[in-house]
Amino acid sequence: MGQGFDAHQIEKGKPCHIACLEFPGDDGCEGHSDGDVVAHAIVDALLAAAGLGDLGSFCGVGRKEYEGASGLRLVGECVALLADHGFAVGNVSVQLIANTPKMGPRRDQAEKIIGRALNAPVNIAATTTDGMGFTGEGTGRAAIATALVYRGN
Amino acid sequence: MGQGFDAHQIEKGKPCHIACLEFPGDDGCEGHSDGDVVAHAIVDALLAAAGLGDLGSFCGVGRKEYEGASGLRLVGECVALLADHGFAVGNVSVQLIANTPKMGPRRDQAEKIIGRALNAPVNIAATTTDGMGFTGEGTGRAAIATALVYRGN
Amino acid sequence: MGQGFDAHQIEKGKPCHIACLEFPGDDGCEGHSDGDVVAHAIVDALLAAAGLGDLGSFCGVGRKEYEGASGLRLVGECVALLADHGFAVGNVSVQLIANTPKMGPRRDQAEKIIGRALNAPVNIAATTTDGMGFTGEGTGRAAIATALVYRGN
Ligand SMILES: [Zn+2]
Ligand SMILES: [Zn+2]
Ligand SMILES: [Zn+2]
Repeated sequence: MGQGFDAHQIEKGKPCHIACLEFPGDDGCEGHSDGDVVAHAIVDALLAAAGLGDLGSFCGVGRKEYEGASGLRLVGECVALLADHGFAVGNVSVQLIANTPKMGPRRDQAEKIIGRALNAPVNIAATTTDGMGFTGEGTGRAAIATALVYRGN
Repeated sequence: MGQGFDAHQIEKGKPCHIACLEFPGDDGCEGHSDGDVVAHAIVDALLAAAGLGDLGSFCGVGRKEYEGASGLRLVGECVALLADHGFAVGNVSVQLIANTPKMGPRRDQAEKIIGRALNAPVNIAATTTDGMGFTGEGTGRAAIATALVYRGN
Repeated sequence: MGQGFDAHQIEKGKPCHIACLEFPGDDGCEGHSDGDVVAHAIVDALLAAAGLGDLGSFCGVGRKEYEGASGLRLVGECVALLADHGFAVGNVSVQLIANTPKMGPRRDQAEKIIGRALNAPVNIAATTTDGMGFTGEGTGRAAIATALVYRGN
């Protein structure tokens, strides 16, 4: 099993990609990729569970080919890397910690898309920090994830 | 497996319910329920582990019947919901991140009460953020939990 | 399974011990021990997974024999305590949340040392909070860990 945490600043005017969905009307997150904290936390948890490092070693800031990379692409490539090492995903649990976007109405959609990429069940939750800290003041977003992997065929 | 995070502001004068105990002399937490961050993190982790959403979908702000609901009631109803879906609890690990209340002297008591509601072992830990951030400044409290569930009978 | 979270302030001029390594040129963390947040989060997660309390109950502030104790010593003693209770470590996943030190180049070294103490695989990851909060402003460091244990011989 592994766990992952990610945080990004919110950048006014940038498209908002969270949990492999686009949320029109919300501001997105900074970052060398599309700033999808949910997807990044998942990738960190998967890599950790398989003992394969972290997001930085996987697609770090210096690597041009990951500039603007979508969260879904990162999740997909991470699952492929795990498969190369003989691992399949058991399940993933991830929680967005942010004031926006409103995840509830689109949770099912996000779980379907990410679950397909993982080929495993995923639960996407959302909470706030009740107005406190950088997530509560709306400066940024964070996400925490845990993942179970197992040795596949 | 699933994970859960919760945070609430501290509200002067409100009774302090944490980990399904009352702590006389400490201020409680705001929230539509009794503000028990430990219980809420546990419920979030359990729901996530079973793929049943999160605290917001389970007993969200709009639902009158959960106004002032105790943490113990939420944990109990969550365990019943899991049972309805064929899940039993393996174990739960939860950590209070706050300056107060002092959990150490009453940990056994809290673990006994919550363990009975879960019908499974629970470990309750406590830590601070060393004076930093909203938990360190005493503005609020947070809790993180992980839970293992399995398909029961 | 269990989870652990730890946070410490950075103290100018104190040697920096993180993940059971010394990082010359970086400032260390305050704390009654050597302030190794990564080691402390691991110990918290291990104790929680085995239902044996938390770092405070294990080597709390009041206990002179742990003044300045190294992270590696705490991990070693924790693994011994678990063994006394019939538990062995399955795996550990831990993430440093801090601006410094640079973990990437020394991750393998840290994983080797800690893995030997755990007698189990460990994945050490690192991330930042993108300039936000106490970890982003460089006031402090935090770490989150999850651990799997099982009943050994
Ligand atoms: Zn990221
Ligand atoms: Zn709550
Ligand atoms: Zn510590």
